[in-house]
Amino acid sequence: MLNPFRSKPASAVIENDALIVHSQEPFNAEPPTDRLRAAFITPQHHFYVRSHGAIPVLDAAGHRLRIGGMVATPLELGMDDLRSRFAPVSVVATMQCAGNRRADMQRVRPTSGDPWAPGAIGTAEWTGVSLADVLRAAGVEEGPALHVAFESADECHVAGRSFLYGASIPLHKAMGGEVLLAFVMNGEPLEAEHGAPLRVVVPGYAGVRSPKWLTGITVQDHPSDNPIQADDYKLFPADVTAATADPARGMTINALPLNSAICEPAPHAALKPSATVLRGYATASDRAVVRVDVSADGGRSWTQATLEDKPDQRWSWFFWNATLDLPKGEHELAVRAWDEAGQTQPALPDDTWNYKGYLSAAWHRVSVIVA
Amino acid sequence: MLNPFRSKPASAVIENDALIVHSQEPFNAEPPTDRLRAAFITPQHHFYVRSHGAIPVLDAAGHRLRIGGMVATPLELGMDDLRSRFAPVSVVATMQCAGNRRADMQRVRPTSGDPWAPGAIGTAEWTGVSLADVLRAAGVEEGPALHVAFESADECHVAGRSFLYGASIPLHKAMGGEVLLAFVMNGEPLEAEHGAPLRVVVPGYAGVRSPKWLTGITVQDHPSDNPIQADDYKLFPADVTAATADPARGMTINALPLNSAICEPAPHAALKPSATVLRGYATASDRAVVRVDVSADGGRSWTQATLEDKPDQRWSWFFWNATLDLPKGEHELAVRAWDEAGQTQPALPDDTWNYKGYLSAAWHRVSVIVA
Repeated sequence: MLNPFRSKPASAVIENDALIVHSQEPFNAEPPTDRLRAAFITPQHHFYVRSHGAIPVLDAAGHRLRIGGMVATPLELGMDDLRSRFAPVSVVATMQCAGNRRADMQRVRPTSGDPWAPGAIGTAEWTGVSLADVLRAAGVEEGPALHVAFESADECHVAGRSFLYGASIPLHKAMGGEVLLAFVMNGEPLEAEHGAPLRVVVPGYAGVRSPKWLTGITVQDHPSDNPIQADDYKLFPADVTAATADPARGMTINALPLNSAICEPAPHAALKPSATVLRGYATASDRAVVRVDVSADGGRSWTQATLEDKPDQRWSWFFWNATLDLPKGEHELAVRAWDEAGQTQPALPDDTWNYKGYLSAAWHRVSVIVA
Repeated sequence: MLNPFRSKPASAVIENDALIVHSQEPFNAEPPTDRLRAAFITPQHHFYVRSHGAIPVLDAAGHRLRIGGMVATPLELGMDDLRSRFAPVSVVATMQCAGNRRADMQRVRPTSGDPWAPGAIGTAEWTGVSLADVLRAAGVEEGPALHVAFESADECHVAGRSFLYGASIPLHKAMGGEVLLAFVMNGEPLEAEHGAPLRVVVPGYAGVRSPKWLTGITVQDHPSDNPIQADDYKLFPADVTAATADPARGMTINALPLNSAICEPAPHAALKPSATVLRGYATASDRAVVRVDVSADGGRSWTQATLEDKPDQRWSWFFWNATLDLPKGEHELAVRAWDEAGQTQPALPDDTWNYKGYLSAAWHRVSVIVA
């Protein structure tokens, strides 16, 4: 597998040829789902990478973070300032791309974007400082209609335009305590692909709102006007096309819908006629998953999977497993989750299809053959 | 319409023969949906009533509320004590029965419970005192695994057992500030059917967790063991029956799933061939509804309804309208909502059917004839 970054300090992620690479530049890759499901905390080298341009290689020692806008005391902080002035905070949080499982939607009709399988998701222990602490140190104004805009060092090339990456979140989310400025992932310094030396981690929101290679934070009375925020990553109805889309009318993607996936067996697996173990994940943004149903007949009948024990980690995914006796023949396995509000997933990718292929969260189906 | 309560002080609700009465004792009734949709704040006489026994007629002057359990200072308060010791708080909140829209599920297969149409829902301005304030005045212990149990004066007759109504909510919800001990509804003293002289209002949760005729509050380390909490109002998978249900394995119904309904036109309406205005509501528990789709062909194609302006009322429903040109013939109108997490509703009542008929929240369909 060609690695265009070999001339730069390469990390295990990019050299790991077990990843499914959707594009080399920008580098976009996800793990096969059996590797994804191997551990509740996803190792860095199995963690999906979503980039919008070349991966910046930044000098941590000289890195500066500027905090400005609607604050009493604008700040400029180095990495040592962050570590020395603020209490360390760790959060176990699942990160998920808004395009996760897009491949299922593309089987209905083509969409823009890479054909992500269910691997554009991962869970890490992120360590850094609380964004709320940093904003309070800057004397942030508080108000219900304010936003926190992030500016990053990566140059994006999207729809013919080149610009530095930016995005924003509502201030009330930024002040929630769970949002981090992170410099450590699973106990190790952040690797380049994951945003070294400093990234945002917004638990419960789509990955797009957790910028990597962070250089600036601005508190303002409107969302970021960066194309990533203002134009891209919007959810549209099914009849809207690239030609007719008005970004101002699209829904800004922040929190993500209830989702689940079968990680094992793999699609088109050839199985022996015996007890077959299904394993997968389910995730519900800021809610708890309370039930997972699996089907061996495409959703005509269901049985309940076992939700595996998990630590009290509010922002992380849920793992589940189920054992089904499958007779000889072809079987369409399916999974759907239920959250604590009694919400379940729509059945068909047609029900949520949109031309950008975002928020693909219908029942996940995997066909297998028992012979 | 027979009114078994005429010997007691009857109110406008029970005497209003515009309500669809599912049972007289216990009194269970809902408004026709066109009346429901007539005003954002539902008048008392159009507000659904869900009872589990005879409606108590309590003496406000002598009414006492006892607060005990894991509190430093157990309290016993009269209505005047509540009014004089605590700040008045008003919240506009939607109340919805866990059985709302059950009739749609019963068209798939029979369930237990009354065949509620989409009218077991209403929105009121509730005024009272904050439950959090009262619990703090009692010196409540705080802990993540604690519960607040409510005891009421109404005698329930359920599944052959008679008991006083009780239910509970997690302490973290009780301390959220939005949960009220209410004695005023839409500016008027509570009527008997709505819980006079004192009821709980838990915005975002199913009505079952907002007990009427409140007499006691207990802070404890487990949910209420009242049959309403421990046995009834649980969500089960589709293959569970009354004979096989283990209440300990059912999901406790608190927050409610995304839901929507067409309030006008009515089912089987005979319409003229011209622009037809659809009106309805959508609700998403603690989330915002951001889009509503309507269909004139049973969900094969969709257009976007207009979300009507609403005040900044976090806990209330959303009203929507849409105008469709319907040619002559039969049409299956349908509606589905989307929330701020990009979640939408399942398509078919089959997808969420359960033997108790709870949380019926598939696309709402209304057949009409244009001639």
